[in-house]
Amino acid sequence: MRSKTLFYLLLMIPVSISSVMLIHGCSPDKPEPVRISIIPDNEYDPSKWGEVYPLEYESWLKTRDPRPAGKSKYKKGWDNKTIYDKLSEYPYLAAIFNGFGFGIEYNEPRGHYYMMTDQVEVDKSRVKPGGACLTCKSPFISKLINDNGNALYSMQYADSVKLIPEKFRSLGASCIDCHSNKNMEIRTSRWTISEGLKTIGKEEISRQEARTVICAQCHVTYIIPRDDKMQPTGVIFPWKKGKWGDISIENIISQIKSSPSYVEWTQSVTGFKLGFIRHPEFEFFTRDSVHFKAGLSCADCHMPYIRTGVFKISDHNLMSPLKNDLKACANCHPQARDRLKEDVIAIQDRTASLLNRAGYAVSTATKLFEAANNLKGTADTELYKKAKDHYIEAFYRLIFIGAENSMGFHNPSEAGRILGDSIAFAYKSEALLRQAVTKAGMSLPPDIGLDLLKYLNNRGTKKLNFIPRQELPDPFGIQELLVPRSATGI
Amino acid sequence: MRSKTLFYLLLMIPVSISSVMLIHGCSPDKPEPVRISIIPDNEYDPSKWGEVYPLEYESWLKTRDPRPAGKSKYKKGWDNKTIYDKLSEYPYLAAIFNGFGFGIEYNEPRGHYYMMTDQVEVDKSRVKPGGACLTCKSPFISKLINDNGNALYSMQYADSVKLIPEKFRSLGASCIDCHSNKNMEIRTSRWTISEGLKTIGKEEISRQEARTVICAQCHVTYIIPRDDKMQPTGVIFPWKKGKWGDISIENIISQIKSSPSYVEWTQSVTGFKLGFIRHPEFEFFTRDSVHFKAGLSCADCHMPYIRTGVFKISDHNLMSPLKNDLKACANCHPQARDRLKEDVIAIQDRTASLLNRAGYAVSTATKLFEAANNLKGTADTELYKKAKDHYIEAFYRLIFIGAENSMGFHNPSEAGRILGDSIAFAYKSEALLRQAVTKAGMSLPPDIGLDLLKYLNNRGTKKLNFIPRQELPDPFGIQELLVPRSATGI
Repeated sequence: MRSKTLFYLLLMIPVSISSVMLIHGCSPDKPEPVRISIIPDNEYDPSKWGEVYPLEYESWLKTRDPRPAGKSKYKKGWDNKTIYDKLSEYPYLAAIFNGFGFGIEYNEPRGHYYMMTDQVEVDKSRVKPGGACLTCKSPFISKLINDNGNALYSMQYADSVKLIPEKFRSLGASCIDCHSNKNMEIRTSRWTISEGLKTIGKEEISRQEARTVICAQCHVTYIIPRDDKMQPTGVIFPWKKGKWGDISIENIISQIKSSPSYVEWTQSVTGFKLGFIRHPEFEFFTRDSVHFKAGLSCADCHMPYIRTGVFKISDHNLMSPLKNDLKACANCHPQARDRLKEDVIAIQDRTASLLNRAGYAVSTATKLFEAANNLKGTADTELYKKAKDHYIEAFYRLIFIGAENSMGFHNPSEAGRILGDSIAFAYKSEALLRQAVTKAGMSLPPDIGLDLLKYLNNRGTKKLNFIPRQELPDPFGIQELLVPRSATGI
Repeated sequence: MRSKTLFYLLLMIPVSISSVMLIHGCSPDKPEPVRISIIPDNEYDPSKWGEVYPLEYESWLKTRDPRPAGKSKYKKGWDNKTIYDKLSEYPYLAAIFNGFGFGIEYNEPRGHYYMMTDQVEVDKSRVKPGGACLTCKSPFISKLINDNGNALYSMQYADSVKLIPEKFRSLGASCIDCHSNKNMEIRTSRWTISEGLKTIGKEEISRQEARTVICAQCHVTYIIPRDDKMQPTGVIFPWKKGKWGDISIENIISQIKSSPSYVEWTQSVTGFKLGFIRHPEFEFFTRDSVHFKAGLSCADCHMPYIRTGVFKISDHNLMSPLKNDLKACANCHPQARDRLKEDVIAIQDRTASLLNRAGYAVSTATKLFEAANNLKGTADTELYKKAKDHYIEAFYRLIFIGAENSMGFHNPSEAGRILGDSIAFAYKSEALLRQAVTKAGMSLPPDIGLDLLKYLNNRGTKKLNFIPRQELPDPFGIQELLVPRSATGI
């Protein structure tokens, strides 16, 4: 009797399982967290990490692959194996950056895999003192600073690269930059971000915040302070007066202007000594953007969870969500992806239009300073000085949005505000300069010639030229009313 | 046997109901749709409609009540029974609007209940030919046009109001404007919107679209074309070249500029003949805004469903969702309302900052034209003409956003784009004028005096003055760098 009961009970198990499957449909394999294992200390080689974490490694390795073209309208990176020339995309920058490395060769980055390669392959006339540039680009930077001290910053770029073991000289952002080898937890590896966070008084970092802070190791602007001989002495984040969620363009500009040691280059066309602003994604995104305030981190949109077989991992194939068909967006936004994409492009088009407006306004003012300088000091000093103050405000705002890698999407209304102010300052500068120059007896046409091809062609040792098909013109066609094409010199 | 079975069956009914209630908790009264009854044709009196639809009527009647202060930072309406003076909020407008009714008395509207009252009570020196103004404000407009033909448009405002039955002279937007008396369905009552929709080729209107179109009867900009004697001849919506979801500021400006009959006033300070733009909520919201593209209508945010007893109705107490503690927003956004409010204010602050920038830029250019005009034609004609072209572009963009009732929130990045362009055109105008005036030998200070108090004080027969506490200054404090307070004349 007992054995018969047992027989029937055993018989029921598969039946029950089948019933459950029938009710719930064909149940998929349950995603499982990846196993945790041990990586040796100071292991730089991603392939060694990949032996323990093959799925993450494989997804990271995909940052090497070209992207299909046409997915992102403005951030083209490595689409169809093309390297995009930012000076051709935004030709007004050529006049503004003339005299600086960025005016010689300035490309859209291809992605994490190519971080070092993009830098090593840049025109040789661009790379002078440049050890400081490894601060973001190489995972070896902390070791190099430990071994060489501050001398590294002012070392010739090529010499500093030679300090990296040969097989790792083209290794960009990789495992050790963001992960602890002990337990795979994310953690920062740069002193720059630690000092930056100290500057803004941010002591406790939640895990969700860490998923932003990790990216802020490099996706921030920075200052390379110089000594009397213009030799780099370090790398700092200009975050004074800032706080978590509020590092404003105004505070960044104020800090850049606060010390002559923050001057990084001399603008050829005007003779002005200026600082610089690079890829401020962290500052821009975290300043009251809707997505940041909703609690999102960089990784939520750029490293969405994906399933690989039975495993669930963060996608390490980082890119614009546009290139990924908005997979990350779909986690919160159930709308059709085509519709979501239209929203993104509408915001980016508007930002691109204002960027165009600000860029041509700044480049026009740049050329007017050249004209005023030709007057050898006969231009009204008060007007000239005020025009210069306004110009500098316009310049930093322009390059802040120009360098930020989302064409406004990370914080749409803040992009409008910053560019609107750039436009205001640039044109106010033009207004005062037109008065000063006219007062000194010089005649000016209504449209100032920008001579852009002069700055766009024959750049550096590579003799780089303007690539017309890469230009990103004003999507609304308004720019022509303010600076007609005939005045651009293109 | 049968009766016993029936007895047990009957016994089971309350038991089953109790069981269901036990499972589902204490079941609330189920919301029911309101009953539909018949209202006589041409019934204008809301209280009569209210006899059949008391809940909607009561919620509509609440638009009479003052709002608590401090809920909306920028749109204050009827907070604490205060009428807000837009010329004090945005003092630069006083110089720009001088010579037009809007330069005499221009108040924030108090709400639907006061639509006619706000107009009737406005300074008498403002209301000249004004029958056209009833097109939106009075539910009687179609009857008045039927009875009087086009003569109504050019009638003195006071005379046209007398054509409305006495007891309804202060009746603003009410039941008959938006509802069919037959079945309570929403339907438009103005020929202006019908013609407007025809202009953009919009034939089929879904019910959800109707919840926007109803509002677009009045929350749109319009042109009052004039005859040779500057007498109004009609009211049209400048939607040529537009389409559903795409009526741009560019197309509106192009239409205003297309005919001398669209000139509505002469700007005192410059002598320019100009058109005008009013409250373009529909055009602004529907042009690629995220909320519009997500399928939302005006009513979704401004008339959320509310429960009154067992009934579910659309809230007819229309207001900014901010004043309602974001009740409507909460239907889609589960976040804490304080947090949502921060998002709204962040967007509005940025828009307000750019509006300030554009406003002072346009008023500075306005004063420069006055200076140039004093030169009696000795200023360079080409520079002057180009400056005027740019000025007009800047002017219309400024007043588009200035009149739009959301301080940018209905379409944040579009607000930035429009104001950025306004700033560009205004400052370009200033630049060419400074050159022209200087070339003609006139000396100009770096900061142009705006004499704003001259335009702000002693306005109209009411002798209205600037109210300093109502001013809405730049929330970011940037404006001071471009137009110092000392130059404003305040």
